[in-house]
Amino acid sequence: MNWQPIRQGEVTLQQQIIQWITDHIERGDWVAGTKLPTQRQLAMQFGVNRSTVQQALEELKAAGILGAKVGSGIYVTDNSWHSLITQTQPNWQTYIDTSLHKPNYHTIQLINEYEQRDDVIRLGTGELAPSLLPTADIEASLKELSLQPKALGYSSPQGNDRLRAAICEYVEKRGIDVQSQNICIVSGALQALQLIAVGLLEQGSIVFQEQTSYLNSIHPFQSVGMQMMAIHRDEQLAQTLAQRKRKRQAVFYAVPTLNNPTGGVWTSLEKRQLYEACKASRIPIIEDDVYHELLFEAATPPIKSMDDSGQVLYIGSVSKTLSPGLRIGWLIGPTTVIERLADIKMQTDYGSSAISQEIVFHWLQSGKYEKHIESLRQKLQQRADFVETILQEKFDDVADWSKPKGGFYIWLKFHEPIVDKELFTKLLYRQVLINPGYIYDPQDSHHIRLSYAYATHEELQSGLEILYECVVEA
Amino acid sequence: MNWQPIRQGEVTLQQQIIQWITDHIERGDWVAGTKLPTQRQLAMQFGVNRSTVQQALEELKAAGILGAKVGSGIYVTDNSWHSLITQTQPNWQTYIDTSLHKPNYHTIQLINEYEQRDDVIRLGTGELAPSLLPTADIEASLKELSLQPKALGYSSPQGNDRLRAAICEYVEKRGIDVQSQNICIVSGALQALQLIAVGLLEQGSIVFQEQTSYLNSIHPFQSVGMQMMAIHRDEQLAQTLAQRKRKRQAVFYAVPTLNNPTGGVWTSLEKRQLYEACKASRIPIIEDDVYHELLFEAATPPIKSMDDSGQVLYIGSVSKTLSPGLRIGWLIGPTTVIERLADIKMQTDYGSSAISQEIVFHWLQSGKYEKHIESLRQKLQQRADFVETILQEKFDDVADWSKPKGGFYIWLKFHEPIVDKELFTKLLYRQVLINPGYIYDPQDSHHIRLSYAYATHEELQSGLEILYECVVEA
Repeated sequence: MNWQPIRQGEVTLQQQIIQWITDHIERGDWVAGTKLPTQRQLAMQFGVNRSTVQQALEELKAAGILGAKVGSGIYVTDNSWHSLITQTQPNWQTYIDTSLHKPNYHTIQLINEYEQRDDVIRLGTGELAPSLLPTADIEASLKELSLQPKALGYSSPQGNDRLRAAICEYVEKRGIDVQSQNICIVSGALQALQLIAVGLLEQGSIVFQEQTSYLNSIHPFQSVGMQMMAIHRDEQLAQTLAQRKRKRQAVFYAVPTLNNPTGGVWTSLEKRQLYEACKASRIPIIEDDVYHELLFEAATPPIKSMDDSGQVLYIGSVSKTLSPGLRIGWLIGPTTVIERLADIKMQTDYGSSAISQEIVFHWLQSGKYEKHIESLRQKLQQRADFVETILQEKFDDVADWSKPKGGFYIWLKFHEPIVDKELFTKLLYRQVLINPGYIYDPQDSHHIRLSYAYATHEELQSGLEILYECVVEA
Repeated sequence: MNWQPIRQGEVTLQQQIIQWITDHIERGDWVAGTKLPTQRQLAMQFGVNRSTVQQALEELKAAGILGAKVGSGIYVTDNSWHSLITQTQPNWQTYIDTSLHKPNYHTIQLINEYEQRDDVIRLGTGELAPSLLPTADIEASLKELSLQPKALGYSSPQGNDRLRAAICEYVEKRGIDVQSQNICIVSGALQALQLIAVGLLEQGSIVFQEQTSYLNSIHPFQSVGMQMMAIHRDEQLAQTLAQRKRKRQAVFYAVPTLNNPTGGVWTSLEKRQLYEACKASRIPIIEDDVYHELLFEAATPPIKSMDDSGQVLYIGSVSKTLSPGLRIGWLIGPTTVIERLADIKMQTDYGSSAISQEIVFHWLQSGKYEKHIESLRQKLQQRADFVETILQEKFDDVADWSKPKGGFYIWLKFHEPIVDKELFTKLLYRQVLINPGYIYDPQDSHHIRLSYAYATHEELQSGLEILYECVVEA
């Protein structure tokens, strides 16, 4: 989608744009019913004035190729007399609209899309900056890999044996005592959630979570008909869980160490309380522990380390520490559960990349992984300090925040309820991308998830300045 | 699951087995309701007599730890007075039994499991033998990769840009004219089917397929409530499709080149007929083209090359040619559809392995891929000839088959309806693994999918001898 009209061409910008759009329709690429991007988006994409786009669209509307629906934008018409539009095309839009899986939230789609652009400052991105990725070291480690032919074939259902053995040793340091058969390698934590959603829960099951939750920004559970239920962790927790659960199946999703997006860290006592409360109601816990390595101070043991009843499904990953591009995470639980989820993974994608698994094995087993994390933590700490200094200088009057304990995020709370779609769009127009709080809690209009992990120092500085300007205007 | 009791130990085999089982229960690994493998399976796994296993199980039954349900095997009891079994365990088995996704067919689970064993001859495996994989060349190409930090971050929704551009060029040789935005990189063809199932079809949609179909051995569509419908391709095809479709949404799944499992190859005319018939009823076609590179003679253009209505979703992959462990395939279709499916892929696993994508790009772009395939085809041809010679010598009286035109398989048809679960199990007991025809067509008791791609020459020789013995006994 990176096409742009040529400025010094013989054909006008407007005619080039018309040609580009009709080409799409003629090829069967944009089928009847396809919604076009907004004029503003097209103007940004083409690098032209909005009026140029508007004129091109008007001409296509006059020709009966495009049509407008009030309040919902411009569509390719189902205008069967028009030679451009094949009468026999499947009605793809209907296929899409009636299918099972929910589309991503529009804000998330925009974030996914704008994250691909180089000219955008990313203030919310939950990902290590390119400069923090050990690219040269990974490239070097590729030269050290010695591949067995068997490793290039289809994987065993639960994943590479050597990698699982290495993960056993790795999580043992976190107080988790398991064997290889308790581990299923997954393509990142998100896939683990996806497998749990379709492989362990009946339709209508309850997924307990905190009010502000990463799960609200993705929807592996929502897409298959589970009920999300926000729960406060207070002294009545056990009672509340028992009441709300009634006769339904349920599961509790928790990110006890460096919560996404709030950055919160539970104490050992809080972990113990949740475990006991869930145990009393026989509610399994999904412990998402993908940030624990990034805690600036020593981490306390995870809930999984307290688990003597096969109650906790534990998720780890290298996406936040080594490289999200590897797509390697792990899910730990009772054999019965792991075998079931591995069976579904085999039906879904026949296992994760063999090379990625070999790389992660190499990094874990050689000690490179832990060495890398140590230096990464320091760099993240410096970035956190840098951003906090800017916040103290500029945002003290308009917002509050807690000192980050690790990871990527500051959960910035504005005094006024100004974080809405308008602010998001206004910032986007100024080429600043934020993760607004409402994607983690639909009722939230006070927070943004500020990430100090991705943007450069210069970008953080100027991005925060633009954010401040837009906020005081609001 | 590779534990075996020690033979010269102080503790009897039976006591070791009891300890192994109770350990699993105590750890919360085998929870109440867990079904144990059969005595036969346990005996094979432990490498002991069936009577030893039986005695161990009897002792555990007497202790109230295990229980038997008539006709359905041995379970961990929900025996809450027993100290081994924690009262507060979640009832995982109920969770599994009531969840959304179907388990794999038992025969497929067994195949997945036994394919991990080194002492089994694999006569049905749809995978290149380790000796046919270009392991050394892939290892060498790892040393040539130069990684950009950006490539190690999260992928763009549709996958690596360079790889998609290279795929455009590659499929152009197949007569397919598309652009990068028409391509979504997937983790193998199976994932493409999965995305189509949840991202394009409403519940109850019809999936047309041939009577004998790869889709019967996997169930991305069945698991989300689609109706599978077998269709004969005859002169009434257009009429049949229109009638059966009625008002429902539908899609036609086809493997026109080197069908899995039959090895069949459609003529250009047959492809054209299917395309026109589907076009008349506005039924999209899924063209699964993962075997085309392995045709021994020149391939005719795919259905996708005839597509002027954005009707065909085309699937390609390197799993059958380069390495299944890379987990890289591609899905080609109208932008509208591709963007939708990429959006769901982002919600499912955040994209495919960046390193795997880089490797495939390197192989396509350098010309290594096509060079490798040329030599691979010759090797497969030799293997096909070798197996045919054995068949002619030994199986001429009991079975028929067509000369393979490429790919991995001979669709061996026995004169008598002897291919049933009993034959499958009997062969398994003699350490020979087959893919029986009934996993591709439940009514089929005549065929097996014989693969000449995986086993060694020696294994093929002795495996086929054992097959013959079991068949004439039957």
